[in-house]
Amino acid sequence: MNTKKQGGLAGVVAGQTAIATVGKEGVGLTYRGYDIHDLAANACFEEVAWLLIYGELPNQDELHNYQQRLISLRHLPSTLCKILELIPATAHPMDVLRTGCSFLGTIEPEAQNHTAQNIADRLLAIFPSMLVYWYQFHQTGKQISTETGEKSIAGHFLHLLLGKAPDETTKRAVDVSLILYAEHEFNASTFAARIATSTASDMYSAICAAIGTLRGNLHGGANEQAMALIERFTSPDAAEQGLRQMLAEKKLVMGFGHRVYSKSDPRSDVIKAWAKRLADEKGDKLLYAVSERIEKLMWDEKALFPNLDFYSASVYYFCGIPTPMFTPVFVFARTAGWTAHILEQRRNNKLIRPDADYIGPAPRKLIPLLNRGPSS
Amino acid sequence: MNTKKQGGLAGVVAGQTAIATVGKEGVGLTYRGYDIHDLAANACFEEVAWLLIYGELPNQDELHNYQQRLISLRHLPSTLCKILELIPATAHPMDVLRTGCSFLGTIEPEAQNHTAQNIADRLLAIFPSMLVYWYQFHQTGKQISTETGEKSIAGHFLHLLLGKAPDETTKRAVDVSLILYAEHEFNASTFAARIATSTASDMYSAICAAIGTLRGNLHGGANEQAMALIERFTSPDAAEQGLRQMLAEKKLVMGFGHRVYSKSDPRSDVIKAWAKRLADEKGDKLLYAVSERIEKLMWDEKALFPNLDFYSASVYYFCGIPTPMFTPVFVFARTAGWTAHILEQRRNNKLIRPDADYIGPAPRKLIPLLNRGPSS
Repeated sequence: MNTKKQGGLAGVVAGQTAIATVGKEGVGLTYRGYDIHDLAANACFEEVAWLLIYGELPNQDELHNYQQRLISLRHLPSTLCKILELIPATAHPMDVLRTGCSFLGTIEPEAQNHTAQNIADRLLAIFPSMLVYWYQFHQTGKQISTETGEKSIAGHFLHLLLGKAPDETTKRAVDVSLILYAEHEFNASTFAARIATSTASDMYSAICAAIGTLRGNLHGGANEQAMALIERFTSPDAAEQGLRQMLAEKKLVMGFGHRVYSKSDPRSDVIKAWAKRLADEKGDKLLYAVSERIEKLMWDEKALFPNLDFYSASVYYFCGIPTPMFTPVFVFARTAGWTAHILEQRRNNKLIRPDADYIGPAPRKLIPLLNRGPSS
Repeated sequence: MNTKKQGGLAGVVAGQTAIATVGKEGVGLTYRGYDIHDLAANACFEEVAWLLIYGELPNQDELHNYQQRLISLRHLPSTLCKILELIPATAHPMDVLRTGCSFLGTIEPEAQNHTAQNIADRLLAIFPSMLVYWYQFHQTGKQISTETGEKSIAGHFLHLLLGKAPDETTKRAVDVSLILYAEHEFNASTFAARIATSTASDMYSAICAAIGTLRGNLHGGANEQAMALIERFTSPDAAEQGLRQMLAEKKLVMGFGHRVYSKSDPRSDVIKAWAKRLADEKGDKLLYAVSERIEKLMWDEKALFPNLDFYSASVYYFCGIPTPMFTPVFVFARTAGWTAHILEQRRNNKLIRPDADYIGPAPRKLIPLLNRGPSS
């Protein structure tokens, strides 16, 4: 492909990976050779995180020990609590995670006895505590305890957020969404993490770079945009009318299509089934119907399929997660994939430093300050 | 070139830029068409920052107003002071800047009335205050004032650091080094900033990604490594002996060669002249002589030329800057280049998302947890 014409490194191979395949022949997703449908149906997120980071599925003992280790790493250091209290209530939740992660790097820095894998465990365990501590402090003034007794990351997060034990369906819905969001090859945030790693920088720098990159609406922020779209409409007909107008005005509709998948996003049918199940259980008569109508229209009019972000939005809504936390939940999941890529980059590192095509001014002589005229 | 063989996107054009040319035909560096020698001899850093960010050199009024604006933006918000006090004395100074920048993004977020350009002004002005406040608080227990009355960023930084007005030679040496470090096309940290920007993320996220990427020893950290090398030797002869041993052991010598320049680094002769001048003025009999011997040996034995990082190390040493601050000073300068690239990326944005070459396991079926054997 012609890089210069396409831009954004589309179609350019930037390196090798043994972690995931995305959209070979336009379809499909595997993590370490396992199909995403198989993983979403038959594994839990912690199993998948282990698979991504260590390369093989854990056995019973390994999984049990891993879960116990993650539970033991959920507590917030007291100075981190102070930082979270100093971050204002108005902050973007992704900025809370980026800042919390960056600060953690100053009190628990990477070292020979605190490896990238140790830090990955810590971040996977602590991110939900970090986010909800900040949220509850500013919403209620309470300095919450981050002990929940929940076995899973999904359960821990929901328990802290809702202030009580979540039901099994809700917990599993979020758990599955974490599996689906855990890894996606050389996406922008992962590639940013690999670039930071390629200079021999530390684990926290790479994860901060990834969080900041995921934050944008053209990447992780898309699920929040999808929610904003869906909840705008009071009926499927109103949605159809609204969408037709958006398309006529050539507005970007978030949650559809994908840079790499050309035929469908294999994660979408999984999360859609969960959206349907939750809609039925919670007695929803609107959001799911609106979502389906938008999906149909986007296919009929633009031949665009929903990506993972589209039905994730209603799943998170039904689970009681506030919209500004959708992208942070993506962070909880993708931390596993980022870590796998950081470790892979380190094993066979070369500085990532592309060239540029210069289109600027020809060589010119500096005019002394006193002789420069008024600005143009 | 064959990307797969070379790796790290070497020789791959990742996009267009009108900001700098690096090493066309293996030599030379221009910012917006102006040769780096012309800029280093005839401009101040603030002029160069304006040139990079706004595309043309400022006239007298513009430069004056810009300098006044930067002076007015040096103060630290009280909550940021608390954050800096909570970051331990043992922290890596780059982590201080990464965390401080990230936190600033939560209290002064990007918005329509607080643009990327406004944030660039603020960061250029505040980074030296941020670093030295943290440093002095932990070294002396004092909460320093960040008012210095110094006109330039170089002067402000040195004044805060040394606790008194720096002499003119020292000030200008650091000022010139900031010009040399200000911009360098699609280097790794700048490319990381462009990737974060390409997802439509905010200015702070892009700068945090860049700081974290610059931190590595294969990028910004190289000047600190060069210093550690130079100060290890007690004479030029000892340096020659030590270097020969390192080369025999195939150890990496930092501060030599460059990914893009093949014949010389055009910034090196400028900074070397300043190293010589400072060595003479400060009565140095060792560091400069050791540096020259290392340079000669690297050329004779490996045909490698010094890059900017090599003689920057002794310049900063002669100016009284502690080694762990060398890479942060690089941040003070490169914030100008990063900003120029962030604005350029936004003007013609496309998500940066490369492909990967999959070398992992073939498709395989998940074995139920209970049936998995002991780990291999």
